Amino acid sequence: MMKENLLYEGKAKKIYSLPDFPEQVLVLYKNDLTAFNALKKGSFDGKGSLNRDITSLIFKYLKTQDIDSHWIKDIDQDQMIVRKVDIIPLEVVVRNKVAGSLAKKMGVDEGLDLKQALVEFYFKKDELGDPFVSEDQIIAFSIADRKDIEYLKEQAGLINEKLKILFAEIGLSLVDFKIEFGKDKQGKIVLADEITPDCMRLWDHKTGEKLDKDRFRRDLGEVQESYLEVYTRLKNYLA
Amino acid sequence: MMKENLLYEGKAKKIYSLPDFPEQVLVLYKNDLTAFNALKKGSFDGKGSLNRDITSLIFKYLKTQDIDSHWIKDIDQDQMIVRKVDIIPLEVVVRNKVAGSLAKKMGVDEGLDLKQALVEFYFKKDELGDPFVSEDQIIAFSIADRKDIEYLKEQAGLINEKLKILFAEIGLSLVDFKIEFGKDKQGKIVLADEITPDCMRLWDHKTGEKLDKDRFRRDLGEVQESYLEVYTRLKNYLA
Repeated sequence: MMKENLLYEGKAKKIYSLPDFPEQVLVLYKNDLTAFNALKKGSFDGKGSLNRDITSLIFKYLKTQDIDSHWIKDIDQDQMIVRKVDIIPLEVVVRNKVAGSLAKKMGVDEGLDLKQALVEFYFKKDELGDPFVSEDQIIAFSIADRKDIEYLKEQAGLINEKLKILFAEIGLSLVDFKIEFGKDKQGKIVLADEITPDCMRLWDHKTGEKLDKDRFRRDLGEVQESYLEVYTRLKNYLA
Repeated sequence: MMKENLLYEGKAKKIYSLPDFPEQVLVLYKNDLTAFNALKKGSFDGKGSLNRDITSLIFKYLKTQDIDSHWIKDIDQDQMIVRKVDIIPLEVVVRNKVAGSLAKKMGVDEGLDLKQALVEFYFKKDELGDPFVSEDQIIAFSIADRKDIEYLKEQAGLINEKLKILFAEIGLSLVDFKIEFGKDKQGKIVLADEITPDCMRLWDHKTGEKLDKDRFRRDLGEVQESYLEVYTRLKNYLA
């Protein structure tokens, strides 16, 4: 890719414009791994390609379940072509069990089952540390309107139902995950960004072992092996 | 008051049982002043009595506006008798302008007008630092149910309308305030706790001067004089 086409570089991906296809962009998955708003940094060989593969397997699976995403096609080992959308600056987090920051914030043990999936919103702004926001704050600061928030919650809930089943089939408990959405030219909201162990918590049903970025965050080792394991199980099941 | 009757000691108040009146409690307003979850401590003579007087003036005023509170009567200089209620462990914050923690969190200037009053909830738990919670989190953690949350928001909005007018009459802009509610024996939710410059932001209409706890938080001086000024204006207007 040409340097002058770089539209945006994030912590784990680069986005390039495609001059011949103005309604598409190219996403390159990097080998970098960051945590705690990039205070902790790492990387491993093949991570970009694993995360590209995991994302596209999941996006393709969701498509069969009538959930549309920005994904168009994969190219090379670590890239994908996606529809160009305006990302809504909200990280949409869905939780089935309490873990991570929420366990700490509420003073409860990790692993506590939530009676109902809990949807949370974080304002996507690195320099502010992606603060947790309420629906009323989202509206007050014109980040999204009530109608879009309702739609995001509904879609996030649906995606969670589909993914919970998918991961259960491969012996993994979907503890929580973060997704992002974008608006296309017609104003339609579609699932965008990525779905990878970078932004999910996956616990093995039998061993309870973590197969996600917590291995990196908490120095548990075998980060690469865990990402590969998730990919392999998904690939074998969906093949 | 007898030591054995002390039910609870907070940062700014002590609550005592009244053995002969089991459905009432006595609230003693202390001279202490704390900020940043009690990391910063101070006090001034007469603060307890000023805050008792300001709270009871406001509670009595709200009563004339059909908003009920737990207040029954004042006694001595710094105490009041109130109905015994079970405090709902939520700090209900109403904001008319952006200030303090919200300005910082959202990366905007203090003083920004909100188109509509914004209601926020904080989970009252000192050891967790009173975290900001969404309505869905309040429900997920069984802090309150949807019906009660709706009622709290509605009441907080109504109280804000009444207080904005009251403070405007005495030349003060009501930037934001924190209130708490309790449930009485019949399950009715009533306004409880206190309403004082400890838990409000009041800016002078003409000078812009702060007449609230920010003078203490930010070392602006004249803390006592500001509390007295708020009391005097309220007293003169409501007399």
